[in-house]
Amino acid sequence: MSASKDLVIGLAGLGTVGSGLVQLLKMNADEIMQRTGKRIILKYVAVRNVNIKRDLPEGTKLIDNPLLMVEDSEVKVIVELIGGTNLAGTLIRKALENGKSVVTANKALLAEYGEELFALAEEKNLYLAYEASVAGAIPVVQTIKDSLAGNKIETIFGILNGTSNYILSEMSAKGTQFNEALKSAQDLGYAEADPTLDIDGFDAAHKLKLLVRLAWGVHYPYEKIPVQGIRNMSAMDIAFAKSLGYSIKLLGQAEYKHSEIEAEVSPVLIPEKAILSRVDGAFNAIHINGNGVGPLFLHGLGAGSLPTASAVLGDIMSIMKDTYDSTGYVTKKLPLAPVGNIDNSVASWYLRLMVHDTVGVLRDVAGIFAKHSISIAQVIQKKQQDEGVPLVFMTHETTVKAMKNALQEIEATNILNAKPVAFRVLELA
Amino acid sequence: MSASKDLVIGLAGLGTVGSGLVQLLKMNADEIMQRTGKRIILKYVAVRNVNIKRDLPEGTKLIDNPLLMVEDSEVKVIVELIGGTNLAGTLIRKALENGKSVVTANKALLAEYGEELFALAEEKNLYLAYEASVAGAIPVVQTIKDSLAGNKIETIFGILNGTSNYILSEMSAKGTQFNEALKSAQDLGYAEADPTLDIDGFDAAHKLKLLVRLAWGVHYPYEKIPVQGIRNMSAMDIAFAKSLGYSIKLLGQAEYKHSEIEAEVSPVLIPEKAILSRVDGAFNAIHINGNGVGPLFLHGLGAGSLPTASAVLGDIMSIMKDTYDSTGYVTKKLPLAPVGNIDNSVASWYLRLMVHDTVGVLRDVAGIFAKHSISIAQVIQKKQQDEGVPLVFMTHETTVKAMKNALQEIEATNILNAKPVAFRVLELA
Repeated sequence: MSASKDLVIGLAGLGTVGSGLVQLLKMNADEIMQRTGKRIILKYVAVRNVNIKRDLPEGTKLIDNPLLMVEDSEVKVIVELIGGTNLAGTLIRKALENGKSVVTANKALLAEYGEELFALAEEKNLYLAYEASVAGAIPVVQTIKDSLAGNKIETIFGILNGTSNYILSEMSAKGTQFNEALKSAQDLGYAEADPTLDIDGFDAAHKLKLLVRLAWGVHYPYEKIPVQGIRNMSAMDIAFAKSLGYSIKLLGQAEYKHSEIEAEVSPVLIPEKAILSRVDGAFNAIHINGNGVGPLFLHGLGAGSLPTASAVLGDIMSIMKDTYDSTGYVTKKLPLAPVGNIDNSVASWYLRLMVHDTVGVLRDVAGIFAKHSISIAQVIQKKQQDEGVPLVFMTHETTVKAMKNALQEIEATNILNAKPVAFRVLELA
Repeated sequence: MSASKDLVIGLAGLGTVGSGLVQLLKMNADEIMQRTGKRIILKYVAVRNVNIKRDLPEGTKLIDNPLLMVEDSEVKVIVELIGGTNLAGTLIRKALENGKSVVTANKALLAEYGEELFALAEEKNLYLAYEASVAGAIPVVQTIKDSLAGNKIETIFGILNGTSNYILSEMSAKGTQFNEALKSAQDLGYAEADPTLDIDGFDAAHKLKLLVRLAWGVHYPYEKIPVQGIRNMSAMDIAFAKSLGYSIKLLGQAEYKHSEIEAEVSPVLIPEKAILSRVDGAFNAIHINGNGVGPLFLHGLGAGSLPTASAVLGDIMSIMKDTYDSTGYVTKKLPLAPVGNIDNSVASWYLRLMVHDTVGVLRDVAGIFAKHSISIAQVIQKKQQDEGVPLVFMTHETTVKAMKNALQEIEATNILNAKPVAFRVLELA
């Protein structure tokens, strides 16, 4: 593998997301090669304090001035994960001016200077990728930009800020007041010491502006977005709303109606049975309506080290591929799958046996389960139906093989009126 | 605009999806131009019966042999929407051999002949795009292929077949038996006259195979996927599962564990509070877990004319762009947004007023609402709290402006102990 095939990058920032990226580059090196045919070489990492020992790949240069990496012609992509609008803005501008594409997670910068920076990237025929800037791991940028490119977008409603959503979920689940829920969020690392950007809705507004741009190709002045956060949210309103069948969520909302776009951030009541109501904790979610796709709902982690880094790495790899890729792999003649033996698959089970109403049936069935080391969690026996007495079991985890064998043995005893019904249980969140 | 900039395509099949595509090409022509800088020219449409009058663009040639469009060197992309594995397979092969990229929705064909067809496309340096083949409008192919490219995928669980999901939802909601629910699905067009592919799980298995390929870059032999559908689903099991706190869903499941992949389609019990449990009717949903992204959930229409066509058109446009696109628009200097006046925005409202406990307060407040034509849907008045008597209203739809004015007037009467709390209500599904 010649070095010229590799992509050389410089990373500015080794905070939550930056360190997540370094981790993913290491953990998923095989996947990167399998999908792009190249390696990603982390040539520079810029941090404020170079004296602290860092866990970095051998050969990576630790520097304290990110602008230095812009001078190196080997570096093809700058990853900006320092945040803020000053140094980050200077870095991105200089990177583009020096012929380097940029991947960023900086919603505040793009909300304020996006027009100028995208124009500069276009002028230089470079990429400015920012999937990580909106809703963390949820691929909403690519979804609107590429997958839904053939749609007129009608509405976008999003839970775009994990901090405020976590606080509202806490208040709703426990009936606590705002201040207590905020403190809980801060203790768990879901909120900053200064939580203003998050709880006053400004962070959501930055992201909303980027979504409006993607959905309708227009520059929506940030200062024209009405923004109301959750700073004064009362537990009383959450309780009243619940009694009326609603939950309260902080939503970024954008709607195209009568040739106009309305964008705003505010707390909104939504029906408890709506799928957006079920978005809890630090998750984000976005509900998009387009005139082709209809209603589309995306839900995932809006922040965090590895999730946000996943979005950054997806962008880097798209830049590497540089072209629409049909299959996601460089080798189209794919190897055979290492097919797992389902017999060893472990799960809990739901079983329904229709049995004769005779003495000793339960003893016999329970005995067969015990013989195959199948532990029973719940039992329901109901009154005789037309087809027999329904005997329902929920088991603890056991293998497909053990269950097959047990059922075969049960069927051989002739106590059943019909074939057993057996479904596995998936304890999903 | 020179003709050479346009993309000339041929469409095989004018059924549900084909006619949806023709509709979208017409409705969203502006968006296509705005995003790609080119027009899509529908040069051919191939149907079985050319004598039936069709609503097609002027200049489109209606033909009955789709192989003819493969001979025309102007045509750059063939869109295969006829389905089946014979003629569709021949068409796709010949298209690729003749230097034309292909967009298809044909999961059965790709499940059976995908390895050979992707290899041929690669050999010819062409695209074989198939977003519409898996979960209709949900952009799962692009999500796994591009956005999640930097992840090791751990698990995929999907409701991949709308027909069977509709039937299970009906049975669950109404307590009906399978046959009755199937008939209802057929009457509404959610199930075919011969529903085998859907209710026996084969359609889900085709799609699952494509997902396994995307997630792990391996060829998983279709015949090795254990498939159990919902043909024998009993209302009794759905009721028992519900009483135990579970719903039953037909899931395509794939898991990478201990260097092996287990893929299968079967009915599974999942907790009622899981987000996947809330997927009703003919919707599809996919739950992906990756070692970077964490849990990602996508939900949308798995079938239907416009939704599936949205996926087809997204693929055509990606091929047109041919390169990773940063912003989704050809013009980076975007026009200013036509910002809507929020005062005219209409919604229902939740209001909480904290009032003095005095005679006539309700009359006065109600009077002010009536004056501003605000109609009241619900009222709750609770016992005196520390901050006063909470008076909660849910209103019918009114404008932001009317509500602002009404609240200003209420505040001016001095009956309030605190600022009014007012949130809009979003009646989302």
